[in-house]
Amino acid sequence: MLIGSIEAGGTKFVCAVGDEDYRVKDQITFPTTTPEETLKKAVDYFKQFEIDALGVASFGPIEIRKHSPKSGYITTTPKPGWKNVNVLGYLREELNVPMSWTTDVNGSAYGEYIMSTLSNEKIDSLVYYTVGTGVGGGAVINGDLLGEAGHPEMGHTYVKRHPDDLEFEGICPYHGDCLEGLVAGPTFEARLGKKGETVPLTDPVWDIMAYYLAQAVIQTTLIIRPDKIVFGGSVANETLLEKVRQQVDELLDDYVELPPLDKYITRPLIKNNGSATLGNFALGLNQLQE
Amino acid sequence: MLIGSIEAGGTKFVCAVGDEDYRVKDQITFPTTTPEETLKKAVDYFKQFEIDALGVASFGPIEIRKHSPKSGYITTTPKPGWKNVNVLGYLREELNVPMSWTTDVNGSAYGEYIMSTLSNEKIDSLVYYTVGTGVGGGAVINGDLLGEAGHPEMGHTYVKRHPDDLEFEGICPYHGDCLEGLVAGPTFEARLGKKGETVPLTDPVWDIMAYYLAQAVIQTTLIIRPDKIVFGGSVANETLLEKVRQQVDELLDDYVELPPLDKYITRPLIKNNGSATLGNFALGLNQLQE
Repeated sequence: MLIGSIEAGGTKFVCAVGDEDYRVKDQITFPTTTPEETLKKAVDYFKQFEIDALGVASFGPIEIRKHSPKSGYITTTPKPGWKNVNVLGYLREELNVPMSWTTDVNGSAYGEYIMSTLSNEKIDSLVYYTVGTGVGGGAVINGDLLGEAGHPEMGHTYVKRHPDDLEFEGICPYHGDCLEGLVAGPTFEARLGKKGETVPLTDPVWDIMAYYLAQAVIQTTLIIRPDKIVFGGSVANETLLEKVRQQVDELLDDYVELPPLDKYITRPLIKNNGSATLGNFALGLNQLQE
Repeated sequence: MLIGSIEAGGTKFVCAVGDEDYRVKDQITFPTTTPEETLKKAVDYFKQFEIDALGVASFGPIEIRKHSPKSGYITTTPKPGWKNVNVLGYLREELNVPMSWTTDVNGSAYGEYIMSTLSNEKIDSLVYYTVGTGVGGGAVINGDLLGEAGHPEMGHTYVKRHPDDLEFEGICPYHGDCLEGLVAGPTFEARLGKKGETVPLTDPVWDIMAYYLAQAVIQTTLIIRPDKIVFGGSVANETLLEKVRQQVDELLDDYVELPPLDKYITRPLIKNNGSATLGNFALGLNQLQE
């Protein structure tokens, strides 16, 4: 059996073909240009294989409600040319196999959930945050993605400001100093005038980032009570996560019982940004079983 | 058929008996004193009836994980005498009927969910916040209470501080200025030196409360994407909720599509604090069907 995966990012598309054991058989990556050109490239790629199903995890916001007339669309994205594009409709027309449709971060959440259970971790639920160009989060609870009325947008909640960071206005075009506005990758440039990759891990800005991300952990911990919280994305690294754990410990003050924090707050199990691809294989397979 | 309900509050116990259509047949209220005295009163009350099942919704924190050795206990409560009390064990021993066990706010969430569906509202999910002596929240998603690893503690997340309220340290003994520390009933006395009941609805402190509660709405909206958010508890009133809606509108900036805010953010459908009792009837009935 062959399952396709599209991780449709705002910068690049990652298309892959795998088997029912989630092994990647083939993979290509190409830049996200116009919808016409990019989606045609994806379709041409999959036409080389006889795929039985396809999992699609897309940048957003997207419409995931099946009964909506815009179901399968990328909706109000600021990305030029991609507003109101019927991505799933085009793929269905061209490829005609069962397809799943969710957000990129939901795809990653699902991939990490599957890999955690395959690794014999005893988990029923998981939250996945990506901290990169933007900030997003997805959750799996008992095998189901959270979000009936729409997909979560966990990156846009507000947080208590760090006392050494009160002057910074945040960079979210919608909310200013929401979580994304305070910790997304481009905040390094906005705060320090240099790229995140060049900021040493000893810079105090990392403590500020950790303070905000710890509050994100506390939000999902106290609202969802998941078994595990995974951080992916280009900004997340083990040094940052260690600071996040320390801040969670301090700010939560043992209010609820949690697993050891180095097990609870982790980097992805799946390496090389492969979480969404594996999640797509699994979600695509689910479509065949429905 | 007769179903019992215990709403075990930190101040009072409300015990009721109802039928399979959730109609209250009989009800008593008595103050919460020692566990021995209070629980015996509840048991003596139910022994007058032949109940087929019992729903229990308790103040907490409580242990809800069925496989835990402390399952059915009130655990780390600061309330004198009630720490580590096996409430459900005692009730089972004495009454010997199928029982459900959850938090008071989860009971209310479930009751409001059931009543919403009985009222033909098209909802699949609901969040219920109580704002009173403390602040708590519960959620129902597709008929299931949220929280596998433990019950939610939505009242203890952090929020962005209101510019006119920066001096106030908050009253949560664990977290200082978490949501509960900033909006629970006793904050009126802490901020203004007078009881909340005596603070006119024109006082600017209500705008500060609304600013924080709007952020709570935004947290659960963007993390869970529920169909409806209900506010109960002694501090919640329609004037406050109207301010909350205005603040949500401003702070969320139409980032996700929501129902009209007067439908989305509401007072309970069930009057006279009856949400938890109805929820208990329904949860108790579920136990019979399992």
